[in-house]
Amino acid sequence: METTMFDINQELREFEEEKFHDECGVVGVYAPGKKDIARSVYFGLHSLQHRGQESAGIAANYGGKIQYYKEMGLVQEIFNDEIIERLQGDIAIGHVRYSTAGESHAINAMPLVVYYKGGALALAHNGNLVNARILREEMQDNGVIFQTTIDSEVIAALIARHIKDHTIEEAITKTLEVVKGAYALVITCGDKLIGVRDPNGIRPLCIGKTPDGFVLSSESCIFPLLGAKLIRDVEAGEMVVIENHEIKSFPYAKKCSKASCAFEYVYFARPDSDIDGRNVYTARNLCGRILAKEHPVDADVVISVPDSGTVAAIGYAKESGIPYGEGFIKNRYVGRTFIQPDQRMRELSVRLKLNVLRENVEGKRIIMIDDSIVRGTTSVKIVKMLKDAGAKEVHVRVASPPVTDPCFFGIDTPNKNKLIAATHTIEEICEGMGADSLGYVSVEGMLEAIALGSDKICKACFTGDYPMELPEVSMKWEE
Amino acid sequence: METTMFDINQELREFEEEKFHDECGVVGVYAPGKKDIARSVYFGLHSLQHRGQESAGIAANYGGKIQYYKEMGLVQEIFNDEIIERLQGDIAIGHVRYSTAGESHAINAMPLVVYYKGGALALAHNGNLVNARILREEMQDNGVIFQTTIDSEVIAALIARHIKDHTIEEAITKTLEVVKGAYALVITCGDKLIGVRDPNGIRPLCIGKTPDGFVLSSESCIFPLLGAKLIRDVEAGEMVVIENHEIKSFPYAKKCSKASCAFEYVYFARPDSDIDGRNVYTARNLCGRILAKEHPVDADVVISVPDSGTVAAIGYAKESGIPYGEGFIKNRYVGRTFIQPDQRMRELSVRLKLNVLRENVEGKRIIMIDDSIVRGTTSVKIVKMLKDAGAKEVHVRVASPPVTDPCFFGIDTPNKNKLIAATHTIEEICEGMGADSLGYVSVEGMLEAIALGSDKICKACFTGDYPMELPEVSMKWEE
Amino acid sequence: METTMFDINQELREFEEEKFHDECGVVGVYAPGKKDIARSVYFGLHSLQHRGQESAGIAANYGGKIQYYKEMGLVQEIFNDEIIERLQGDIAIGHVRYSTAGESHAINAMPLVVYYKGGALALAHNGNLVNARILREEMQDNGVIFQTTIDSEVIAALIARHIKDHTIEEAITKTLEVVKGAYALVITCGDKLIGVRDPNGIRPLCIGKTPDGFVLSSESCIFPLLGAKLIRDVEAGEMVVIENHEIKSFPYAKKCSKASCAFEYVYFARPDSDIDGRNVYTARNLCGRILAKEHPVDADVVISVPDSGTVAAIGYAKESGIPYGEGFIKNRYVGRTFIQPDQRMRELSVRLKLNVLRENVEGKRIIMIDDSIVRGTTSVKIVKMLKDAGAKEVHVRVASPPVTDPCFFGIDTPNKNKLIAATHTIEEICEGMGADSLGYVSVEGMLEAIALGSDKICKACFTGDYPMELPEVSMKWEE
Amino acid sequence: METTMFDINQELREFEEEKFHDECGVVGVYAPGKKDIARSVYFGLHSLQHRGQESAGIAANYGGKIQYYKEMGLVQEIFNDEIIERLQGDIAIGHVRYSTAGESHAINAMPLVVYYKGGALALAHNGNLVNARILREEMQDNGVIFQTTIDSEVIAALIARHIKDHTIEEAITKTLEVVKGAYALVITCGDKLIGVRDPNGIRPLCIGKTPDGFVLSSESCIFPLLGAKLIRDVEAGEMVVIENHEIKSFPYAKKCSKASCAFEYVYFARPDSDIDGRNVYTARNLCGRILAKEHPVDADVVISVPDSGTVAAIGYAKESGIPYGEGFIKNRYVGRTFIQPDQRMRELSVRLKLNVLRENVEGKRIIMIDDSIVRGTTSVKIVKMLKDAGAKEVHVRVASPPVTDPCFFGIDTPNKNKLIAATHTIEEICEGMGADSLGYVSVEGMLEAIALGSDKICKACFTGDYPMELPEVSMKWEE
Repeated sequence: METTMFDINQELREFEEEKFHDECGVVGVYAPGKKDIARSVYFGLHSLQHRGQESAGIAANYGGKIQYYKEMGLVQEIFNDEIIERLQGDIAIGHVRYSTAGESHAINAMPLVVYYKGGALALAHNGNLVNARILREEMQDNGVIFQTTIDSEVIAALIARHIKDHTIEEAITKTLEVVKGAYALVITCGDKLIGVRDPNGIRPLCIGKTPDGFVLSSESCIFPLLGAKLIRDVEAGEMVVIENHEIKSFPYAKKCSKASCAFEYVYFARPDSDIDGRNVYTARNLCGRILAKEHPVDADVVISVPDSGTVAAIGYAKESGIPYGEGFIKNRYVGRTFIQPDQRMRELSVRLKLNVLRENVEGKRIIMIDDSIVRGTTSVKIVKMLKDAGAKEVHVRVASPPVTDPCFFGIDTPNKNKLIAATHTIEEICEGMGADSLGYVSVEGMLEAIALGSDKICKACFTGDYPMELPEVSMKWEE
Repeated sequence: METTMFDINQELREFEEEKFHDECGVVGVYAPGKKDIARSVYFGLHSLQHRGQESAGIAANYGGKIQYYKEMGLVQEIFNDEIIERLQGDIAIGHVRYSTAGESHAINAMPLVVYYKGGALALAHNGNLVNARILREEMQDNGVIFQTTIDSEVIAALIARHIKDHTIEEAITKTLEVVKGAYALVITCGDKLIGVRDPNGIRPLCIGKTPDGFVLSSESCIFPLLGAKLIRDVEAGEMVVIENHEIKSFPYAKKCSKASCAFEYVYFARPDSDIDGRNVYTARNLCGRILAKEHPVDADVVISVPDSGTVAAIGYAKESGIPYGEGFIKNRYVGRTFIQPDQRMRELSVRLKLNVLRENVEGKRIIMIDDSIVRGTTSVKIVKMLKDAGAKEVHVRVASPPVTDPCFFGIDTPNKNKLIAATHTIEEICEGMGADSLGYVSVEGMLEAIALGSDKICKACFTGDYPMELPEVSMKWEE
Repeated sequence: METTMFDINQELREFEEEKFHDECGVVGVYAPGKKDIARSVYFGLHSLQHRGQESAGIAANYGGKIQYYKEMGLVQEIFNDEIIERLQGDIAIGHVRYSTAGESHAINAMPLVVYYKGGALALAHNGNLVNARILREEMQDNGVIFQTTIDSEVIAALIARHIKDHTIEEAITKTLEVVKGAYALVITCGDKLIGVRDPNGIRPLCIGKTPDGFVLSSESCIFPLLGAKLIRDVEAGEMVVIENHEIKSFPYAKKCSKASCAFEYVYFARPDSDIDGRNVYTARNLCGRILAKEHPVDADVVISVPDSGTVAAIGYAKESGIPYGEGFIKNRYVGRTFIQPDQRMRELSVRLKLNVLRENVEGKRIIMIDDSIVRGTTSVKIVKMLKDAGAKEVHVRVASPPVTDPCFFGIDTPNKNKLIAATHTIEEICEGMGADSLGYVSVEGMLEAIALGSDKICKACFTGDYPMELPEVSMKWEE
Repeated sequence: METTMFDINQELREFEEEKFHDECGVVGVYAPGKKDIARSVYFGLHSLQHRGQESAGIAANYGGKIQYYKEMGLVQEIFNDEIIERLQGDIAIGHVRYSTAGESHAINAMPLVVYYKGGALALAHNGNLVNARILREEMQDNGVIFQTTIDSEVIAALIARHIKDHTIEEAITKTLEVVKGAYALVITCGDKLIGVRDPNGIRPLCIGKTPDGFVLSSESCIFPLLGAKLIRDVEAGEMVVIENHEIKSFPYAKKCSKASCAFEYVYFARPDSDIDGRNVYTARNLCGRILAKEHPVDADVVISVPDSGTVAAIGYAKESGIPYGEGFIKNRYVGRTFIQPDQRMRELSVRLKLNVLRENVEGKRIIMIDDSIVRGTTSVKIVKMLKDAGAKEVHVRVASPPVTDPCFFGIDTPNKNKLIAATHTIEEICEGMGADSLGYVSVEGMLEAIALGSDKICKACFTGDYPMELPEVSMKWEE
């Protein structure tokens, strides 16, 4: 029995794992003189919940004194009015985190708060370092201990090492000189709120203006809720320091080469966010249109795998002239279930989440738009559901290029050998999923949709062309 | 502070109240010899969760011995493997319930299990009686006591009164001779699973066949998950008795006049359900098309108030030739919040749930499709959000006729004076919500979309023309 | 693994089952014009928690309108300020319940609130009827349904049947004419608070006076906390009706024969309560002294099985001149554990709760006082612990007579064949538990300690001499 | 209203604060080849729960790989079978923690697990350093960061600093050369379980032998449950290293001067524990006898403030010949309450916990034994309760000397000015609490009872004569 039960939740997890997962969302709010600013961070995290549902935390800074609270769970479950009341501060930062099951531990939640000589700082990090292990070992050689397995602790330890002889800005700069990888950081310390983006600008971070201060956020979608207006993105290799009601810019990196993560546009970010000046909905929708041009096929209806494929599907439909329709109904109430099914129920994991809308499927030639295919395990089940429901043809179209390479910059990806497009040809994948045809948007097509310039986008997971050296990759393979 | 906090949850509740709410969903599973059939009921309820999120329960019948478990909360939260294990039975029924805050009490959860001379029965009820109070008082005159305020207890008490001298079928028939109102009942007793629909067939109930038995359900959308095939709906005024692996039909009512609830097609039911032979998606989509014909307007984009307006919006777009686009992003993680905002955040309740997708709105002439407008309070806020985001024009189109009269058949509606269309002209409503134009689908248009014949649909909430007398309405008004 | 886990909690339960369990405690508070009287009931229940830890509830009556809340769990866990606020009333009653696992269900919690023609009443009941099944079937014959398996529902149904033509006092009187068994009832209805004790006065119920009203309670120990003074006990066969700031007495029973439960003095009641004019501590302590006279033995130390044996042990020590000492340390933090031990731990259930205090035991001749022995399973383990710790001799003395017969008046007792003194001689029991000698206080000794007159005490569980006929006992044996 | 609510819990906290609180209990279990040893630690912590109820944690070491789980709450609430299953290891350590409200944070829970170059170690600490801040700042000067405010992190950081060039034994030794204060440490690392006690041996730590390994524990009371036999205590200034089934002893400290904490005997430790060869019950009981000799008074009964005064009260009674009796009944179900009382209830905090047993009090001359008096606030209320209940005389006797000085070695004590005996004469205290006489046992008397030799006991809180220099005390005063 236990085995069976395990299988179901395993299957539900597989369903989740069919998509990439971003590891974090960060927020910082600066409103000098307002002691209850943790509330704003709370609502900001609430709107960044899609970036991480595992744990969340808020650190509030009042005159350099930092109080924080972080726990496993959803933002709404973790905080209550009593906790928020305790988090007095006029600068506050917050974090939501997704992580793989193995590392799931309250101690790895963020923000990370550390005490150094004469002060404290709180740090929230979205991204992943590629030399964290090397740096960690160097510091351990000098007797530094670590209490977590997160990269952010390495960054904090380095800042603390430098801070006794330097300003916080210098200490951060010195730290970032040795740190390699992807990071969007929000830090508070003293009377400052600081935002940093790595020299490639891989992870997003933008700046909003409120009537009484500023907001930093992974995504601009939270700004309307907080009464903020998007000013601009933090630049690649830039540190912004907010103090005395001003933003000062420190372009700390000697060499910058913008490489904004393509997957933010493809899947992660909310469509109502603008990243590096490009609206996500527009990019995603255009990607669907380009996909229609690159892989046209005659059919009766364009459907999407809800919810993430819908924006591209609408674009595909518009371009192709084939009507958009809903092919699946999604059960909005599915969470982890503790009940095992009896043997009479099959393919439960998918059916719990999706049901075919027979009217749009039966006897129809279907174009099914998915935003991305990672392992391909779920696609097989979904195509089968459509065929079982009487679809005459199922043409799968994917609004991102084949995923062939793992990400080392903050996305939780499986090993290369689990990426179906790394080990199979498109024909094999098509046959494996039982589709009548399969088409992915080209890398060029996707770049055209994102429209930031092809050299300003990190497309490594589609090409293997990483924007920086990966000193620790060989180690990672060995694990 | 407390006041403010109350306001927010109040506002969130208003947001909820802007839609009608169905009061229940029912399931029954019959699989002789399978003792773990409660599992199937669990998964069935899981897929009927949209019909009621307040409480849920399952009663399992093994050889006439009934065990049950019911509690406040979502299906997933209430049950765990240990509880399901205890619910041994090869016949089992289940219930999900929505109710207004005032009546929210665990004791009102269903199924209702009662013990009569020589046995027990479990009963799950979707609907509302219109003479419950009268019947209740008659029985109280004879010394019967009641422990809940739900109509279902009246039905159960009447059945129990008759059962000592009659078969269960006769006892139910005698009960239904005096009971007036809307009801879809699922009952188990002895070795039988029984389904009943009122003489007007107002609330839905359909029958599915599994390899090892039968399923009764409010909606057919659960059948694929349970491995069942839809056979037919229970007829208006019909009782079906499932025993010995057979379905027997008892058309108990002397006079039937089909009046299937229009709002099931408009809003309640899942689009992947068929009710009385008509697929909900198809009806809802067609309603959007007819709306486009009845209230055309030149515009740049058709958007929906997510999620319930989407099917009609797609239909409107198709008919009008104006492209469908997403105008709002819905935050999927909103539940009850315990955190009060600071003063810097306004219109929080709506913004917590919806954010404008500026790209599809700014500078555009918008047609916004809503499935229904009840009080109109939320519409004002939503139209304002669109205008604030730069919409040039906002044309509101509603895929159901103006709601002018309360429902007495199982839908939780406000009093007539709270229904905006009962007290205002369409012009006034349009002006009040700040829209550039407003159009509702006509009653005839809606009926054409549902396509069951205009005399087979209950359209009382749009016309005040109730399918039966309402003996207790005057009492209700007095409260 | 599961088996093992079950075993531990099984063992812990056995540990619990070694003692009799009372089924309930009841409270009623009357304070006209004070709407927040539910608070007082809460604190009263809090101090009656020892009488039942399974479920608790409060019903508050304001002008005849009754609101209530009841749930599984401890009083402290169930209620919070928000719930108490909702329970507005100037008359309120409460209940704590213990029950066997099988019947453990929220729906069986009390108070029971029922709606009859023209009103509502709330009822809390401590005791057990001996003709409930017969009455239930008679009513079921007339079509009455029951929703619980508790006797109290039978009482409520009978009252409701009579109330339409009678005053509440008459309706209760008529009900009690047919009801047989043990009951202490607290009822509120209209503007009255009513207390009733059965014609034998088996279960306790006493009256306290507060500055602004009255309190009814199973035990007087709650009075100091509520600012009340004990006036007197409700008499056997008396109904007291509190209204208009007065207590009126209705001696409703034609024939009364006082038979106060001996076990209240032996084990159930808190030592700081007075029952029927006799202080429990005094009775319990004197019982220890008489035990010392009846079963003297030369020894080094008198110890008790904590906590319930302590009062008698102090008495035994005083009488015998042998010093009292603590032989065991009790772990105050033991609840249900979800962790199974590994095989290296034996006799875990007892050791989790008790540890030998070696200094008072090793090399010593011990007199160990237990308040009662029911099944004897735990005694074996405890004696063994003492011997293992080096006790030279262990003389077990029991401050109640041998329990030979089950109780049918509200105490949860095992069947007769599980009562060790019903099936074994004292010599056999002594040998079985590995003790050097065993002595029980005599029935006469116990009665002398209670000092109410030997004909005023129910001693059926020691003698089989029940104070009334038991019409349903044969049925009970058949189950 | 909120204010009132706060007051009650405030009062309940004051009740708690009337006693000193130990900050921790530690356990370590070593059983090579048994992977499920976390279970034993769980049950060990369960029996050390009296040493700390705020948080608890277990770290399990399997082949040098450490997994851990720690959280706020009681041992029983924190762990379930699933968590214990995950804590695979054949060496495991555990910790229970008490702390003042201000520092209450999950991140301060123990064991502390740190990652250094090439490995990990887990550490559990009972005690308090007196130079933690100085050490912390020295390390911070060198760029070390801290993530908690607990002393244990300083110890771990120092060990980690030394471990790269040294064995773990050397690294610990070097660390302890600079660390000053009180500490009982249990550490696991590699294949070793290590126990350390500070050069004064202030906090207890003892060694038990099981059939398949060893146990380290703050108190020996857990040994019977774990099937262990007490071998000996770890010596002051000794490190024991358990590996290869052997205990090796490293007397690491150059200068040792035993100063075992007197308060362990007075109040903290369970009476069934032996500390440094002296049984706690015996010492506590003898203390009562000596108290009787030092402060005799004629009276009718000796009572105790339950539960902690009972052992001494029994001793006092025996010595004086005045009978021991119970004067109070303690409500075993009191936890934090969320319900505020109405105004009619006064002195609720004390009455919720204790009720006078009038029979032993009324008209009697009482000797009331308390184990210790810290602030004196509760004593006032208790004496008043006795007088209100009719006590003719109340003679307070305290089984420890007047507490005049704060502890810096792991006991949570108020500042000196809150210690009533630091600011008032005994006459003033007696008058303040409304007692008829007041007597404390003398320091010599207490030492005689503990019987370890007066120079081997830390009696600083009674004399101000601290066993070591206190470099940080002046800082502490400034806070």
